[in-house]
Amino acid sequence: MPHDTVSGKAASATREVVNFRNTHVVLVDLGMGHLTLTGEPEAAVKVGMAQAVPDDVMINADLIKDLADVAKDQVLLQGVLMRVQESPNSSEVVTYAPFTLFPSPVPKAVFLQALAVQTHYNTLVDKISQDQDFLKEALASTIAVDDFAARLFRIHEQILKEGRSQSIVLGLNRSDYMLDQKDGASSLRQMEINTFAASFGGLSSRLPDVHRHILKVAGQLKQSQNILDNNPAAGLAKGIAKAWELYGSDKAVVMFLVEEKQRNIFDHRFIENELWMRNIPTVRKQFDDVYNTGFLDQDKRLFVDGHEVAVVYFRNGYMPQTYTSEQTWDARLLMERSRAVKCPDISTHLAGTKKVQQVLARPGVLEKFFPDQPEVVEQIRATFAGLYTLDMGPEGDQTVAMALAAPDQFVLKPEREGGGNNFYGSEICQVLEGVKDSTERMAYILMDKIEPKPVKNYLLKRDAPLQITNCLSELGTFGAYVRQGKNMVMNECVGHLLRTKSSEHSDGGVAAGVAVLDNPLLI
Amino acid sequence: MPHDTVSGKAASATREVVNFRNTHVVLVDLGMGHLTLTGEPEAAVKVGMAQAVPDDVMINADLIKDLADVAKDQVLLQGVLMRVQESPNSSEVVTYAPFTLFPSPVPKAVFLQALAVQTHYNTLVDKISQDQDFLKEALASTIAVDDFAARLFRIHEQILKEGRSQSIVLGLNRSDYMLDQKDGASSLRQMEINTFAASFGGLSSRLPDVHRHILKVAGQLKQSQNILDNNPAAGLAKGIAKAWELYGSDKAVVMFLVEEKQRNIFDHRFIENELWMRNIPTVRKQFDDVYNTGFLDQDKRLFVDGHEVAVVYFRNGYMPQTYTSEQTWDARLLMERSRAVKCPDISTHLAGTKKVQQVLARPGVLEKFFPDQPEVVEQIRATFAGLYTLDMGPEGDQTVAMALAAPDQFVLKPEREGGGNNFYGSEICQVLEGVKDSTERMAYILMDKIEPKPVKNYLLKRDAPLQITNCLSELGTFGAYVRQGKNMVMNECVGHLLRTKSSEHSDGGVAAGVAVLDNPLLI
Repeated sequence: MPHDTVSGKAASATREVVNFRNTHVVLVDLGMGHLTLTGEPEAAVKVGMAQAVPDDVMINADLIKDLADVAKDQVLLQGVLMRVQESPNSSEVVTYAPFTLFPSPVPKAVFLQALAVQTHYNTLVDKISQDQDFLKEALASTIAVDDFAARLFRIHEQILKEGRSQSIVLGLNRSDYMLDQKDGASSLRQMEINTFAASFGGLSSRLPDVHRHILKVAGQLKQSQNILDNNPAAGLAKGIAKAWELYGSDKAVVMFLVEEKQRNIFDHRFIENELWMRNIPTVRKQFDDVYNTGFLDQDKRLFVDGHEVAVVYFRNGYMPQTYTSEQTWDARLLMERSRAVKCPDISTHLAGTKKVQQVLARPGVLEKFFPDQPEVVEQIRATFAGLYTLDMGPEGDQTVAMALAAPDQFVLKPEREGGGNNFYGSEICQVLEGVKDSTERMAYILMDKIEPKPVKNYLLKRDAPLQITNCLSELGTFGAYVRQGKNMVMNECVGHLLRTKSSEHSDGGVAAGVAVLDNPLLI
Repeated sequence: MPHDTVSGKAASATREVVNFRNTHVVLVDLGMGHLTLTGEPEAAVKVGMAQAVPDDVMINADLIKDLADVAKDQVLLQGVLMRVQESPNSSEVVTYAPFTLFPSPVPKAVFLQALAVQTHYNTLVDKISQDQDFLKEALASTIAVDDFAARLFRIHEQILKEGRSQSIVLGLNRSDYMLDQKDGASSLRQMEINTFAASFGGLSSRLPDVHRHILKVAGQLKQSQNILDNNPAAGLAKGIAKAWELYGSDKAVVMFLVEEKQRNIFDHRFIENELWMRNIPTVRKQFDDVYNTGFLDQDKRLFVDGHEVAVVYFRNGYMPQTYTSEQTWDARLLMERSRAVKCPDISTHLAGTKKVQQVLARPGVLEKFFPDQPEVVEQIRATFAGLYTLDMGPEGDQTVAMALAAPDQFVLKPEREGGGNNFYGSEICQVLEGVKDSTERMAYILMDKIEPKPVKNYLLKRDAPLQITNCLSELGTFGAYVRQGKNMVMNECVGHLLRTKSSEHSDGGVAAGVAVLDNPLLI
């Protein structure tokens, strides 16, 4: 397994400062990727409790029913909402975003490790987006077989040829992890990094108060005080606001580029509200609006529906099916060529692909981006899962053989965003048997399957039965950065996201109705 | 018109301190019920603007459509919710509580007058509730013809006979006003005082931020800063919390006595949340729960479903149709006899009847309650509308003749709570012709009809068309007081409520789907 990037031993101890519960605390890396927190009040964390509530609460059907009723009203009052599937573009009736009744345990060390590494991931993504040669080489096999990636790459190349018209770069991303708990220990393993339209920073900002309330009503007053503050909406908006300010026009708007079906509009609204609180105007537009009314003036300023656009915040455009016509592609190109700050720009979009993730896991690649910072390399690498190429050649052949021999140990990932696209177990064999001898296999990467430990909880979804469920969680950390020319003017970890699903489901996100929103309870 | 209680001239200037935008400011009564505010920043109020937004915004259909979309999402995010009519006991899907797109103008003087008089109304209600003889005399004609009032009165008398087992009194009420603007001036006229289950203190607490946001998005940044803070939920909860503390048992709960159909549960939830924030446990129970599981221990402590109840907060029980069986009446009696603090207790319930309101308007009656405080008498009386008895006898005969001669100048009010029960215009003649020669007429009172000036606005209701509407508003002020024995330990005005409806509707509240929630914009 040549690409297993988790080194057996950590580099010398490093120190990181992260914003934790609104207090800057110092993390000391003790090696092996395990971090110890200093300066934190003793009382904040209980060690060794696997569940948020005792077993007798967990199995008390009457109490659970009452708590679920309270929880649903609470989550609604906090604005953790979704439009209903029947009318995704209407707010006449709405429902709650699915969520867990109780917060889920997350080991403190790995939680803090994820927060601490986020600013380095920001830097890494930003460096990749500026490395033309790296992107070209890394994505060569993918664009040979994936039309969507190829089309994006053509826009990227055209922009490079024409020269970028905007030196302000705004990156809002989310790095997603699972915990590998095979051997009793908990190791943080990155699943992917989303550099495009990373969602649920809005809704998750209101969830801490929901779980605090539920635990209090459940008689777990002390536990309720252990729920961490979390406000990604404010942090993401801070990044957008910074970019807007640097753009330098009071009348220019932040344009949310949104889907046609907008069930998850409330997640956006939290960020819009944060911007309006700073008196920064926002508008919501679709690709068609840009195509029909958008133009660049002589200085390449972007105008849409009469508004000068300072920032294009893409919440749509990461899936091939969005680009239904040449008009959509034209609209994307218009925005990329413009002087508006794009979040993300086309290069940063490409930097978030799974193929790039896999290439980064090769020995020596991270070192290229951080030549004088071995401790950063080590910190990032400590979060990598085993990642394997399926490119043509002996290395890819070896990957195919390895996957077919033990499909249950791997995940096969196509170059797609949005969740629900991965293959597991026998599906891997089915897919690989079909493509293993052609270049088609290059549209995938293979990843070690992670084995987290299930924890019991209740998943609250509209009209779903209330039943105790074995659950697995995925932890995300939100990064926000702004660069102007060569100066990084902001680089922060702005919050986290915990999503939880039944252990029966191998794949799928919140929007797909599989995972639900959650809060970490540090143990 | 012997009972026209609005005196032509005010008493000597009085000074009141009210909590206004979280600042205590001094109001100087300059007579005629018009108050001038001192100590307030100049910029906070604009005089002479009848609408919140200019006409060009008001008639811009595209902009209004956009604003309505933003407004609906905003009100949902703020938790200003209602369950849907189709499933009033489920929170699986919900809708927004109906509200105005823009805040409605309210003259500053009358707004402050209403706030300033509230603590006197609290005192008045409390004094009436303790005046056995007054209640008996005032309600004699009503209980002769109104079975519901009679039944309540029997409980009242039984409690008096047995002796009250609790000396802590908690009063949460809302005094509702309209503005009489017949002659260009604006005079505050009390419609009624609700001493039982006064609602919308919860939902209205989140509406200021909604209108601030809408005005900002509409380009009216300055106006948006003129929206007053308002948090009745916190103030009502403060009263309940005070009563709970005085009761003196950490484990005892606040019991919300609720309806079977609970569409307006979110209004309650805000108050529940304020209590939980103080670590005061709350439960929601119905009359049936009290009947089936409730009992008094030897010290008359009330237990329901195993919980000791410190405070019964009635949000149900003001309408005859609630009392479907003798069991319901038994449950009410059980609670009244208990040592739990009742909000309201039976006497305070009766003090809020319309008949009492009419009797208070007779010359000399207010003086009886405030023998040494002519300025208080004057301040209360300045808010009275003309109120007329329909008791048997020459005075009542005169009222009948007056109403039949000019029905458009009056409102005929039966002894009922909840809105939507009043009669106007030709309806008055119909009803009076039927009852004028019998004692049945004693179940009503007659009131001067108030003529407020319509203002244009948009009423946002689920699935309703978006159309500009001539609107009238009703202003409510929330009062909270706690008395222990002879000591008034809390007496406050804790917020306000503005409700607005189409001028085409003569009657009906928010719950009835006619009026919608609003905010005052002081002019």
